[in-house]
Amino acid sequence: MRVLGVDPGLTRCGLGVVDGGLGRTVSCVAVDVVRTPADAELASRLLRISDAVEEWLDTYRPEAVAVERVFSQHNVRTVMGTAQAGGVVALSAARRGLPVVFHTPSEVKAAVTGSGRADKAQVTGMVTRLLKLAEKPSPADAADALALAICHLWREPMRARLAEAEAQAARLARAHRAKLAAAAKERAAVRNKTTGAR
Amino acid sequence: MRVLGVDPGLTRCGLGVVDGGLGRTVSCVAVDVVRTPADAELASRLLRISDAVEEWLDTYRPEAVAVERVFSQHNVRTVMGTAQAGGVVALSAARRGLPVVFHTPSEVKAAVTGSGRADKAQVTGMVTRLLKLAEKPSPADAADALALAICHLWREPMRARLAEAEAQAARLARAHRAKLAAAAKERAAVRNKTTGAR
Repeated sequence: MRVLGVDPGLTRCGLGVVDGGLGRTVSCVAVDVVRTPADAELASRLLRISDAVEEWLDTYRPEAVAVERVFSQHNVRTVMGTAQAGGVVALSAARRGLPVVFHTPSEVKAAVTGSGRADKAQVTGMVTRLLKLAEKPSPADAADALALAICHLWREPMRARLAEAEAQAARLARAHRAKLAAAAKERAAVRNKTTGAR
Repeated sequence: MRVLGVDPGLTRCGLGVVDGGLGRTVSCVAVDVVRTPADAELASRLLRISDAVEEWLDTYRPEAVAVERVFSQHNVRTVMGTAQAGGVVALSAARRGLPVVFHTPSEVKAAVTGSGRADKAQVTGMVTRLLKLAEKPSPADAADALALAICHLWREPMRARLAEAEAQAARLARAHRAKLAAAAKERAAVRNKTTGAR
């Protein structure tokens, strides 16, 4: 399974492709950061990011895309840019029919380091070790993109099983409700017949 | 000049095309709201919105796209969805080389009603009157999309002039700084010569 991890952002957008092997082995296929000038128009910055992602999807053909889910940050302006960049990335994947999953920063940290409150240096250190890289990926956005891809590779099987279990539970609940409704209807019919016969 | 106004959102995305005529006359070409199911995956909702916008750009061939700029709202989740939807709209326009301008809600309200603090009903009422519509556009997202297009048509000439004036001022400032630097260099050269001659 090959995953493209994306740490979205307008100024720096981290891209990392990771292959998952047997067990928990992972290997780095490619990593880079796309930058767009802060003084460029928003639409052209989004276009630059979209073009880069399209190119990566063409070149590396991942089977899934993992994007960082941002809930809130101090700077609302930054959050907006991050959300917009994430949106165009998700769109590119959806156009190709690729699954897109959003992971929160704490899910990513927990998956890679074992703690949802790990700092940037710990994440970078673990990514470097897990992927057996000769040097630390830099800037942090590059390491984060790789961490996202790893997180997705490790969480996805569990997530898929959980979704299947939930769907199964929902099917059972629906069947049970249908049975109850049928029984109630039958009782009502019997009651009506009894009343009619009086 | 024909403008596509977009009130971005995942649940309801307002689209409105308005033609600007002589002076401040405006006429409605098309208006609608694209809806995506709340239980669908984010990426497929963005794809649905992107497809609709592409279709509108093909059908109505606007010369510019005006999108609502969202700074913050109570619900962070909603803001993210709005930003992501706005991002894919801006991307579609940028891919076609169309200018995309973001207007704040208060700019739109001020342009259409004269007050930046007008409420939804006032905006809808003014949009209905300005475009001489037989009935009020509904839901509010449809009226907002039309208001955005009108706002763009009326603000754009002023905005363009302002941008040109600012660029001109920046050019003059650069030229002035270059002149000052050259003069300082000349003075330093004279000083060095004097010192050297001592």
